Amino acid sequence: MNEKTLRDLLGSFQRGEVGVDDVVTRLRTLPFEDLGFAKVDHHRAIRCGFPEVIYCEGKTVEQVRAIVSKRLESGGNLLGTRAAPAIYEAVAARFPAAQYHEAARAITVRQQEPCWSAGTVAIIAAGTSDLPVAEEARVTAEIMDQRTRMIVDVGVAGLHRLLAHAEDLQAASVAVVVAGMEGALPSVVGGLVDCPVIAVPTSVGYGASFHGLAALLGMLNSCASGVSVVNIDNGFAGGYIAALINRRVGTRSGGP
Amino acid sequence: MNEKTLRDLLGSFQRGEVGVDDVVTRLRTLPFEDLGFAKVDHHRAIRCGFPEVIYCEGKTVEQVRAIVSKRLESGGNLLGTRAAPAIYEAVAARFPAAQYHEAARAITVRQQEPCWSAGTVAIIAAGTSDLPVAEEARVTAEIMDQRTRMIVDVGVAGLHRLLAHAEDLQAASVAVVVAGMEGALPSVVGGLVDCPVIAVPTSVGYGASFHGLAALLGMLNSCASGVSVVNIDNGFAGGYIAALINRRVGTRSGGP
Amino acid sequence: MNEKTLRDLLGSFQRGEVGVDDVVTRLRTLPFEDLGFAKVDHHRAIRCGFPEVIYCEGKTVEQVRAIVSKRLESGGNLLGTRAAPAIYEAVAARFPAAQYHEAARAITVRQQEPCWSAGTVAIIAAGTSDLPVAEEARVTAEIMDQRTRMIVDVGVAGLHRLLAHAEDLQAASVAVVVAGMEGALPSVVGGLVDCPVIAVPTSVGYGASFHGLAALLGMLNSCASGVSVVNIDNGFAGGYIAALINRRVGTRSGGP
Amino acid sequence: MNEKTLRDLLGSFQRGEVGVDDVVTRLRTLPFEDLGFAKVDHHRAIRCGFPEVIYCEGKTVEQVRAIVSKRLESGGNLLGTRAAPAIYEAVAARFPAAQYHEAARAITVRQQEPCWSAGTVAIIAAGTSDLPVAEEARVTAEIMDQRTRMIVDVGVAGLHRLLAHAEDLQAASVAVVVAGMEGALPSVVGGLVDCPVIAVPTSVGYGASFHGLAALLGMLNSCASGVSVVNIDNGFAGGYIAALINRRVGTRSGGP
Amino acid sequence: MNEKTLRDLLGSFQRGEVGVDDVVTRLRTLPFEDLGFAKVDHHRAIRCGFPEVIYCEGKTVEQVRAIVSKRLESGGNLLGTRAAPAIYEAVAARFPAAQYHEAARAITVRQQEPCWSAGTVAIIAAGTSDLPVAEEARVTAEIMDQRTRMIVDVGVAGLHRLLAHAEDLQAASVAVVVAGMEGALPSVVGGLVDCPVIAVPTSVGYGASFHGLAALLGMLNSCASGVSVVNIDNGFAGGYIAALINRRVGTRSGGP
Amino acid sequence: MNEKTLRDLLGSFQRGEVGVDDVVTRLRTLPFEDLGFAKVDHHRAIRCGFPEVIYCEGKTVEQVRAIVSKRLESGGNLLGTRAAPAIYEAVAARFPAAQYHEAARAITVRQQEPCWSAGTVAIIAAGTSDLPVAEEARVTAEIMDQRTRMIVDVGVAGLHRLLAHAEDLQAASVAVVVAGMEGALPSVVGGLVDCPVIAVPTSVGYGASFHGLAALLGMLNSCASGVSVVNIDNGFAGGYIAALINRRVGTRSGGP
Amino acid sequence: MNEKTLRDLLGSFQRGEVGVDDVVTRLRTLPFEDLGFAKVDHHRAIRCGFPEVIYCEGKTVEQVRAIVSKRLESGGNLLGTRAAPAIYEAVAARFPAAQYHEAARAITVRQQEPCWSAGTVAIIAAGTSDLPVAEEARVTAEIMDQRTRMIVDVGVAGLHRLLAHAEDLQAASVAVVVAGMEGALPSVVGGLVDCPVIAVPTSVGYGASFHGLAALLGMLNSCASGVSVVNIDNGFAGGYIAALINRRVGTRSGGP
Amino acid sequence: MNEKTLRDLLGSFQRGEVGVDDVVTRLRTLPFEDLGFAKVDHHRAIRCGFPEVIYCEGKTVEQVRAIVSKRLESGGNLLGTRAAPAIYEAVAARFPAAQYHEAARAITVRQQEPCWSAGTVAIIAAGTSDLPVAEEARVTAEIMDQRTRMIVDVGVAGLHRLLAHAEDLQAASVAVVVAGMEGALPSVVGGLVDCPVIAVPTSVGYGASFHGLAALLGMLNSCASGVSVVNIDNGFAGGYIAALINRRVGTRSGGP
Repeated sequence: MNEKTLRDLLGSFQRGEVGVDDVVTRLRTLPFEDLGFAKVDHHRAIRCGFPEVIYCEGKTVEQVRAIVSKRLESGGNLLGTRAAPAIYEAVAARFPAAQYHEAARAITVRQQEPCWSAGTVAIIAAGTSDLPVAEEARVTAEIMDQRTRMIVDVGVAGLHRLLAHAEDLQAASVAVVVAGMEGALPSVVGGLVDCPVIAVPTSVGYGASFHGLAALLGMLNSCASGVSVVNIDNGFAGGYIAALINRRVGTRSGGP
Repeated sequence: MNEKTLRDLLGSFQRGEVGVDDVVTRLRTLPFEDLGFAKVDHHRAIRCGFPEVIYCEGKTVEQVRAIVSKRLESGGNLLGTRAAPAIYEAVAARFPAAQYHEAARAITVRQQEPCWSAGTVAIIAAGTSDLPVAEEARVTAEIMDQRTRMIVDVGVAGLHRLLAHAEDLQAASVAVVVAGMEGALPSVVGGLVDCPVIAVPTSVGYGASFHGLAALLGMLNSCASGVSVVNIDNGFAGGYIAALINRRVGTRSGGP
Repeated sequence: MNEKTLRDLLGSFQRGEVGVDDVVTRLRTLPFEDLGFAKVDHHRAIRCGFPEVIYCEGKTVEQVRAIVSKRLESGGNLLGTRAAPAIYEAVAARFPAAQYHEAARAITVRQQEPCWSAGTVAIIAAGTSDLPVAEEARVTAEIMDQRTRMIVDVGVAGLHRLLAHAEDLQAASVAVVVAGMEGALPSVVGGLVDCPVIAVPTSVGYGASFHGLAALLGMLNSCASGVSVVNIDNGFAGGYIAALINRRVGTRSGGP
Repeated sequence: MNEKTLRDLLGSFQRGEVGVDDVVTRLRTLPFEDLGFAKVDHHRAIRCGFPEVIYCEGKTVEQVRAIVSKRLESGGNLLGTRAAPAIYEAVAARFPAAQYHEAARAITVRQQEPCWSAGTVAIIAAGTSDLPVAEEARVTAEIMDQRTRMIVDVGVAGLHRLLAHAEDLQAASVAVVVAGMEGALPSVVGGLVDCPVIAVPTSVGYGASFHGLAALLGMLNSCASGVSVVNIDNGFAGGYIAALINRRVGTRSGGP
Repeated sequence: MNEKTLRDLLGSFQRGEVGVDDVVTRLRTLPFEDLGFAKVDHHRAIRCGFPEVIYCEGKTVEQVRAIVSKRLESGGNLLGTRAAPAIYEAVAARFPAAQYHEAARAITVRQQEPCWSAGTVAIIAAGTSDLPVAEEARVTAEIMDQRTRMIVDVGVAGLHRLLAHAEDLQAASVAVVVAGMEGALPSVVGGLVDCPVIAVPTSVGYGASFHGLAALLGMLNSCASGVSVVNIDNGFAGGYIAALINRRVGTRSGGP
Repeated sequence: MNEKTLRDLLGSFQRGEVGVDDVVTRLRTLPFEDLGFAKVDHHRAIRCGFPEVIYCEGKTVEQVRAIVSKRLESGGNLLGTRAAPAIYEAVAARFPAAQYHEAARAITVRQQEPCWSAGTVAIIAAGTSDLPVAEEARVTAEIMDQRTRMIVDVGVAGLHRLLAHAEDLQAASVAVVVAGMEGALPSVVGGLVDCPVIAVPTSVGYGASFHGLAALLGMLNSCASGVSVVNIDNGFAGGYIAALINRRVGTRSGGP
Repeated sequence: MNEKTLRDLLGSFQRGEVGVDDVVTRLRTLPFEDLGFAKVDHHRAIRCGFPEVIYCEGKTVEQVRAIVSKRLESGGNLLGTRAAPAIYEAVAARFPAAQYHEAARAITVRQQEPCWSAGTVAIIAAGTSDLPVAEEARVTAEIMDQRTRMIVDVGVAGLHRLLAHAEDLQAASVAVVVAGMEGALPSVVGGLVDCPVIAVPTSVGYGASFHGLAALLGMLNSCASGVSVVNIDNGFAGGYIAALINRRVGTRSGGP
Repeated sequence: MNEKTLRDLLGSFQRGEVGVDDVVTRLRTLPFEDLGFAKVDHHRAIRCGFPEVIYCEGKTVEQVRAIVSKRLESGGNLLGTRAAPAIYEAVAARFPAAQYHEAARAITVRQQEPCWSAGTVAIIAAGTSDLPVAEEARVTAEIMDQRTRMIVDVGVAGLHRLLAHAEDLQAASVAVVVAGMEGALPSVVGGLVDCPVIAVPTSVGYGASFHGLAALLGMLNSCASGVSVVNIDNGFAGGYIAALINRRVGTRSGGP
């Protein structure tokens, strides 16, 4: 029940067209979201920086295409994560503007002009095996209109490679740090920057990494103060939270 | 080697007072931090919003008092976490401006005028048992000049209590959500707000909470997109990261 | 040894046809179940609301068909869980009344008129990925003559969707809540209803869900008081227990 | 906003005493609970079978006494769990009707006449070490007006002791089974009864029981179909859920 | 160096054919096993009740055939565990006496007349899914000349089925109890018999069985006193240990 | 219902003193244990080698004394495990024959002449820290009339110390091997003997021993074939099972 | 910035060709590695005993070939681990000197004359299933110019087989011990030698080995003092660390 | 049986003083250690660099004093770890040369002149809380005659502090790196040095460090190649292994 409907109802009541019992009944059963204090999902897509998000894994091509069609009606942008190539092809057949990001296994459809963020999201990947997760973070942040800077292959066992990027690191408004194995990179990055660090553990590693548990625990126990952590291999969460943070810095004109 | 020292060295070299070998040697051995791209610790305290932080647990009263004295020389603010009352008394005997936050078990010494943040950090605690951790987050954020709003006793099994605070929640720039047991509150809050949510699991709970593991895993697997997680019972990390994020919104005049 | 056999034996003894030693021997070796205080399995199928249950996974088509034939002789209903389509086809070829529930991967054969429950079992699934488990719960409850109401896609990060079903929730006599990821839905539902809540964790989720462990722990630590938990992905258990509870409310005429 | 307040507001509006904007504003901000579909906590205490519950652990004597005083105003019953003797004494000094259940470490205050349940809650404890948890379940169920039957020291390694209680078991409407070590008792009981079984694992056991984890896993994996599980050592949850179920059977006159 | 070789050496020394240095050197380097206190592997096969054992998993057909050929030269019996049918065929092509035990995935070759044990090894399987592991135990015990008695489908949720075998259980000298899920069967059996119980957990179960961990922990925490435990799915170990124990009872003539 | 009672009942029936309905009723409700196929607890104490066992931990001095008094009436032996000195003193005050085994924290009362076993139970402890657990095994085995041989301080990192006992090891009928840390000793012993090995992991060790988990897993994964495992620190179980096995070898005259 | 570039810069400055600001700017941004205190990766390949290492798993044939080509330009040796045969073929087509080590799944290319170590690396594998991991250790150590000695099939349950190699063990400068299951071999070896022992747990084992966790914990808890541990199945790490240690003993002429 | 005894025996045999049966018997029963290929414990103390080691925890003052007295007879050095001050006082009362290392909780007694190592063991501690473990490593290495260099408070979140010690790090022959929390320091150090790194995880940290598990897993998954790991808080192992490695570099005159 949006405000207009509510006012219409009250008007009808005032004019005696509906009785008090009807009004009470209508108010009692009005959907929660219509009260205005709920975050209404279908409003999201048209706000700057909030795409529709579809998690494609476990859905059929047909299901995804149907959902995409419905969601794109609102005119907003769209992000499909964990999407196989076949899903992209089906989407692209109907929405030629769709783009496929192979490494990230993500689909984006942009229907709105970007309003690029003033700040930059640094996305840092420890090794090449961590790239797919880092790419998912990048694609997510960019469809949310964030400028990004990728820094890759900067594991903690070769500090000079990381330190060569010191300027880029310190220019960032927020950093997404993607690492598997011992997951130590966020601690080191957190010691080099003053901005928030979102740590994304990956399942990269063998044996005692226990599918990312070692990296996850390492990041949760970071001795650097500004590090918070998301789920294993969840590049989307890393990019999304970085975008939420970076939006606060404002926007500026120009390309990504 | 700060810039002045570097320029002095180059001046001496230009004037022929030192040879090229000496310059090369000096440059080779100059400490990493002097190169300017390292985050220099002793600069922190005098920047707006960055206190000196001392983790007091496992340190003697004497050790803490010595460290506090040294750190306060820079004129910045100070935060002592996990501090027993005896430690506060020793600190206060010498620094009367010191304040003790009993629930948070934290000491603060403020030497600089606050420059209050424009945005507000909402700190939400599921139950009264989670209060000490939430208080640590609040004290941390406030000594970093952030406005805060505490919302307590709003567990997910009594939604109406949480929803009664919908306005405050949605006015926040960042939310720190503190919960033990199943750790579900960050997911619910994350569905009500558009700002980043920092989830702090607590060790509150019995048996199969396994000292906070259940809450930790719950938060890492949150179905809400904007949730990142810190270590169990680590209210300091929650408040610190929230402050890093909220700083980006800017400051405004007035009280906290 | 059913009662008749026992009385016959005593009669023979009274008539002197068998000696006291024979009676003692017969009594000593009579099977446990014949004593009447054991729950006799083959009585189950003919009681209202108790189907024969066959767990099909790990059994061959031939084995299942043989067991089904034997079990159906008693005239009761039958439920086959975790049944591949090929198993259904084999069963249906012989028992045309057999029905296949694809999402639930379950077979039912109904030989008895249902005596529908007076109360309703609400079955609530957090997301679409949890549907197969929820469907297994529904099919189980229905073959046990329970009225059910499915409520789907009501994750805790979108409370308004759940609250839109408040009336259905509160009309239920028992609720089965199926959720993966952080497993928070049972806590929220438990706060909205006064009836028992059976929580079914699913293995839906990535990385740190550890194949349903996060959801399982979350549910065991629920801050809502009326929540009990079954094994991961065990929709059958959820539906079965809900039926045991709902049977206590009684039956009423009419359809499901 | 209860119904009367809502109708008063609409009356004032109809009479022109308040404008449409005021009504819209009032409706937008009305607390969730007033909409009628939330489970209102303070209504609970006056409903038959729902006591106020206070978890005393971690609260001071003073805090508990204050909460108790406030809660008892509604005229309902009260249950304090995990209460040390000192807490009981403080409560009893003010509320002479308070009773202390030493083994269960629970306080009850009964202000309402019981309306005893028709059905019986069987509470079964594997060993004497499991008694405190079983007692907590019993006290909880009884303050909720449920008839109970305690059966103790019936571990699965001595089946004859359990089977001696077959009649009592089969007369129960619901069974709470409390066991530590391997936690096998619920499976055996579940095979003897047709009613729902609530399994409560305890932390009783040594070494590889891992503080109740072995019992918890055992119960979750029960091969008996009607078993659901609550948190380790959580006798309160066992008793509470059993009461929720047993209430459905109705009430009957007479003592407990 | 067997005794004869040692005496020959000393003889040669005594006769002056070898010097003292040679003797010292020979003694220093004599293989450990020759000292007589080591359990010599190649002696095993010819002793009553000790077959050669080959774990076939991870070995090629060719490797197994080679090892089998070599081992059978000693004239003893042979047991190949975890053997695929292809491996059996290769072995049988050369050793027509080889037998394949399909359910157990085991090969046996008997070259010695059995000397059957006086006592009986009871092998008890909770469910049909546990049969392969139980069969491996049976085949192992039988090639070690033990009489066995299989009792299957006697899960703890249907006690009457187990109790129907009370006589067989109590006649056994040792019991091997195979169970997955909650692993409770050894506790119940342990309460019915006075002989040692070897518990074999299986990986049968779903979700929170964690591939047999639940059953393993259950068995380790058994409240019955005579239960010891082997690795998950390790039917061979169960049968082998049972044979070691049962051998102590002696042998008697007659068939298995 | 013992046999005499049963025959009396049948006699009364035959004489017409009781009717058939009464007999049926009596038979239906006769306790399980009276059927003769249950292992009757109170028969145990008077059989050679089966003491009454009381686990004293968590029981008051008064409780233990009461239980001891009752159990000793049968004239059998008694073993109290995990008994503090105060408990022993209370028992000894009434039963002067009681003995306290300080290292094992066990009480024994012997009322029956021992019938010593023919075979010997070797009890092997890796280090001195494992001695209390090994002593509990020894005391348990001895009160069950088993000859024992203790071998201590023979960790796997000093093989020569173990091998010096080769003769004793190989003379044993069964071996109880007690070890903490990596728990490797049972594998090594298992390779030296042909008898069954009962492995008892202890919680001795630091950090990554995780309170005995490392030793437990090590023993379960033993590469020696004759090793089965009991719970962490459960010396009683080790001694009890060893006695069950060794009893099969028979008895012989002479001292322990 | 190598030394020459630095001196050139200072020369230009001295000659007034560049200003002081330029020099400061250049120095501020000079890459970390150029400062001389970082371990420069591309220097590694040409130092004796340090090959280029490429982890091939998860890389395409094309990617590996490209990396190999680039790395071999420096003239050093090369080691490719976890390389499928197809990868070897692609590499060998271009670099005929490449060798494939099938069991180790490793590729080596030797471009430098070996300078063989004076000491020997003993590589000891418990069972044949551990051979691939042991081979990876051997190939790694040899491409690093270390003499090696393989000792296989010497599990702790057959001590005589291990002790037969006592001389080789005690001649080694460092030992790499590879074992799965209970992982006890490093403890036993550590008790026989005075040199450092690198323990490599393997995932060999079933059920409760939990993919190498049992062996890993066993090795970490070794009661032998000289044992340190690497990741599960990480033969490369074992060989690499052994080489680092053995290099300290020096080199000597002659073959491997 | 040392060589002289063996030769004497053979001489007696040759002279006919003992018969062949006696020789065979003597040889069969000679202790393993006498064969010369076992590492004889009591030889250790007199060899350069191998002290007697006594783990004092869990031993009484009296027990330790007795063991110390016996061990010091050999004239070697002695190290007592985990020793409370009271133990030191008892030892020092008898051996005035004993020294107490308070932070390390270690006692040393030096009876032999040190032969200092040529190489240096760098011992690096992440934070002050890790110091006790690092000190234990240092004391252990020094009583084994190794030169050491302590580098403390160099956590990975403040790289400049670590890099300031680059020269010391690169001069070391072996590095012991002690860290709790995320345990990332060994990876960073491993990237800066070419020598072996022994990583020692500590239990320092809160909540999700799980008593050192996070640091342990982090170190096992290190992306640096030369890192091996010991048990949690096991500074002794770190120092001991470092000494074993460093001994290979040789010794040189001068102080530590």
